[in-house]
Amino acid sequence: MEMQFEAFRSQLEESGAVRERIRAVISELDNVVRVMQASLLPVHHATTQQAAKEVLNKAKSYIPQLQKLYSQLAEIIRDRPGQYYRYHDHWRNQTHTVVFLLSFVHWLDTQLLLSHSEVETLLGVKPEEFSIDIEDYLIGLCNISSELPRYVVNRVTAGDYECPRQVSAFLSDLFSAFRILNLRNDLLRKRFDGLKYDLKKVEEVLYDVKIRGLLSNQAAPKPMES
Amino acid sequence: MEMQFEAFRSQLEESGAVRERIRAVISELDNVVRVMQASLLPVHHATTQQAAKEVLNKAKSYIPQLQKLYSQLAEIIRDRPGQYYRYHDHWRNQTHTVVFLLSFVHWLDTQLLLSHSEVETLLGVKPEEFSIDIEDYLIGLCNISSELPRYVVNRVTAGDYECPRQVSAFLSDLFSAFRILNLRNDLLRKRFDGLKYDLKKVEEVLYDVKIRGLLSNQAAPKPMES
Amino acid sequence: MEMQFEAFRSQLEESGAVRERIRAVISELDNVVRVMQASLLPVHHATTQQAAKEVLNKAKSYIPQLQKLYSQLAEIIRDRPGQYYRYHDHWRNQTHTVVFLLSFVHWLDTQLLLSHSEVETLLGVKPEEFSIDIEDYLIGLCNISSELPRYVVNRVTAGDYECPRQVSAFLSDLFSAFRILNLRNDLLRKRFDGLKYDLKKVEEVLYDVKIRGLLSNQAAPKPMES
Amino acid sequence: MEMQFEAFRSQLEESGAVRERIRAVISELDNVVRVMQASLLPVHHATTQQAAKEVLNKAKSYIPQLQKLYSQLAEIIRDRPGQYYRYHDHWRNQTHTVVFLLSFVHWLDTQLLLSHSEVETLLGVKPEEFSIDIEDYLIGLCNISSELPRYVVNRVTAGDYECPRQVSAFLSDLFSAFRILNLRNDLLRKRFDGLKYDLKKVEEVLYDVKIRGLLSNQAAPKPMES
Repeated sequence: MEMQFEAFRSQLEESGAVRERIRAVISELDNVVRVMQASLLPVHHATTQQAAKEVLNKAKSYIPQLQKLYSQLAEIIRDRPGQYYRYHDHWRNQTHTVVFLLSFVHWLDTQLLLSHSEVETLLGVKPEEFSIDIEDYLIGLCNISSELPRYVVNRVTAGDYECPRQVSAFLSDLFSAFRILNLRNDLLRKRFDGLKYDLKKVEEVLYDVKIRGLLSNQAAPKPMES
Repeated sequence: MEMQFEAFRSQLEESGAVRERIRAVISELDNVVRVMQASLLPVHHATTQQAAKEVLNKAKSYIPQLQKLYSQLAEIIRDRPGQYYRYHDHWRNQTHTVVFLLSFVHWLDTQLLLSHSEVETLLGVKPEEFSIDIEDYLIGLCNISSELPRYVVNRVTAGDYECPRQVSAFLSDLFSAFRILNLRNDLLRKRFDGLKYDLKKVEEVLYDVKIRGLLSNQAAPKPMES
Repeated sequence: MEMQFEAFRSQLEESGAVRERIRAVISELDNVVRVMQASLLPVHHATTQQAAKEVLNKAKSYIPQLQKLYSQLAEIIRDRPGQYYRYHDHWRNQTHTVVFLLSFVHWLDTQLLLSHSEVETLLGVKPEEFSIDIEDYLIGLCNISSELPRYVVNRVTAGDYECPRQVSAFLSDLFSAFRILNLRNDLLRKRFDGLKYDLKKVEEVLYDVKIRGLLSNQAAPKPMES
Repeated sequence: MEMQFEAFRSQLEESGAVRERIRAVISELDNVVRVMQASLLPVHHATTQQAAKEVLNKAKSYIPQLQKLYSQLAEIIRDRPGQYYRYHDHWRNQTHTVVFLLSFVHWLDTQLLLSHSEVETLLGVKPEEFSIDIEDYLIGLCNISSELPRYVVNRVTAGDYECPRQVSAFLSDLFSAFRILNLRNDLLRKRFDGLKYDLKKVEEVLYDVKIRGLLSNQAAPKPMES
């Protein structure tokens, strides 16, 4: 009995040590994510394209640090094939925020959705080694949605009357895309319910702009940096 | 004692099996409802009558699938007289959404309320076999009410300034009709309280349109497709 | 719209009135159950067979009142075929206690389990008109189990050293019988988990009696009133 | 955007379908485990070695069914390398009970602990394809511990005064073995705390037997079936 338990001890200690190593990486990741998020906040009140561009560049400057930390996670998991989901809970929450930050920056730049594989490319992870779970990616996208109503209100306040139309179109597409999914995952379904509310808020801003005759009649929305 | 419990086992397993069969139907119903709801979403941003008509036709194309699934429920219950309310909880939520979808589509088509018996006819259920519970119907109606403010906002944004008047008249009638009822049911009363709030929101849009001189003076609202 | 809602009003009021009538019966049932339960308490401290018999007779004297009230429930439901489960929640809790009381009294009398159909006979209900739901019957049985450890402790204190053996055998049979069932019902499963604990407590009393040499060596337990 | 979400849909549906398949196996496993556990119950009241042997043989007769179901789980996971821990939650609880049943039967047979690799052999799983998680194995062992005090009480009641000594020695060894482990896992630590309490209860029975002079003086405990 004792010999067997000695073997268990070393195996439990090995998995305990893996958890410790992951926790150390996540703790650093948490710091980078927090600072990157803070660096992005001024985009809500950037009054010129130049100012917005500087905010985005500052935010993007943290991407190499994200890459370093995700490559550390990948390295820990690489030696333990098949254990990604054993430890997945540890990086789940931070990954939601990372996906949010990367895809919000990307949308601000291009008015386009950052795809799942683009997230993995930006983070420098190889899907066969350390992939970003699809549900984590989708929850990250829901987080953009909850940021956009505030962004639209601030842009209109700053005199950008086209922004509500762009955001409304983007969120409406995103909302339709989510409806395609059969969401059995409780957390994801709950976040998705918020998406509808965000879209409604943006549509109300668009309505306010329209009814006051502030909306131009040009059909196609222009990307912000064009 | 054992013989009696053997009998209980088979009875508990029989009701367990009924629940399994119902759950299988509800899971499919859930899919159809989700896809039908997704198909109806573009009605918020349909810019022409033709586009709106196509959206409605697409949504209506799912009705035969609803009929098939409700006839499966009816078949399960038909063999178990008096057990409709034993299993009612299983289809309650989906039925609220089905009533909402059918009556929203009907209202978009005709600006009229879809009656309780019309719902049963559309679903192909015979009331003596498998009726739609009245409270479920009424909750489904409350769901239209919560969709209409968003619809009105989007219609006005698209330049349809008559829509608020039509919707306000419809919701006002619906609100009066609900006041006839003596609502002791908690869920229904709560939803009805939302109806008042929805009516108020639509009236505010009507006011916005009116004070900006965007409302025509013609008295009678025209149905959308006339 | 108004005519339809007038019809709904009368239907909602009809079901509201049914609920009122049922609630009035249940309120009276609640009283009888409470008094009957109080009348049964002294059985824990009855020191002679005669005293125990008197307690049981007193408890049984409430059965005609139970019959009257269940026949009132049956009468309300008889006119509404298929609505037993619509209103089932109203009498569920009281029925658990009624089953417990009847079957505890029966066990005290005979050391036998009161069967499901015997419960219906005692309550004077016809299964085709107003049955006792099987899950309610089973939950009622679990309630006896939770009364028995206390009863055993009191009987041993009063010098009846055979009682633990009888109760242990009864609960052990009941426990085995429940294990036959596939309990998907959450409430029932939770109550059943308590049954195991009750059995363990009774076995510990039996152990105490055995280890002190107080247990006779006769194999078959005798019913209390033989 | 839509194409990407179509791909997500199929991936989410694929993992949803895997969960459905696993759930179907687990539901069957649940049945077998329940019936096997019920078949083992009479061991508490078996009065002869022959009767106990028959109970154990009955319990062991379910092992081929366990093998069949674990091989089905293994087959589902085999096609999805590295996803064992993604779906691990589904079979965790049942596996605890399976380990308990197998190792309790083994202990009753031999008074020895069933090792982790013996569990895998009995279940017919190949560790490289579908292993039994070590923490699940250890939790299963804790479940024997919580069954043993009741077993000891019943054995003593049946006049087997050697049993407490055997069980006390076994639990004491098991307790020492667990102390070797560094338990950071919350669930496992909580169960382990229960082990100490179970050992104490068995020691109290041993004490009761000893001070009443019911314990023989022979040093070595005899296995039950020798």
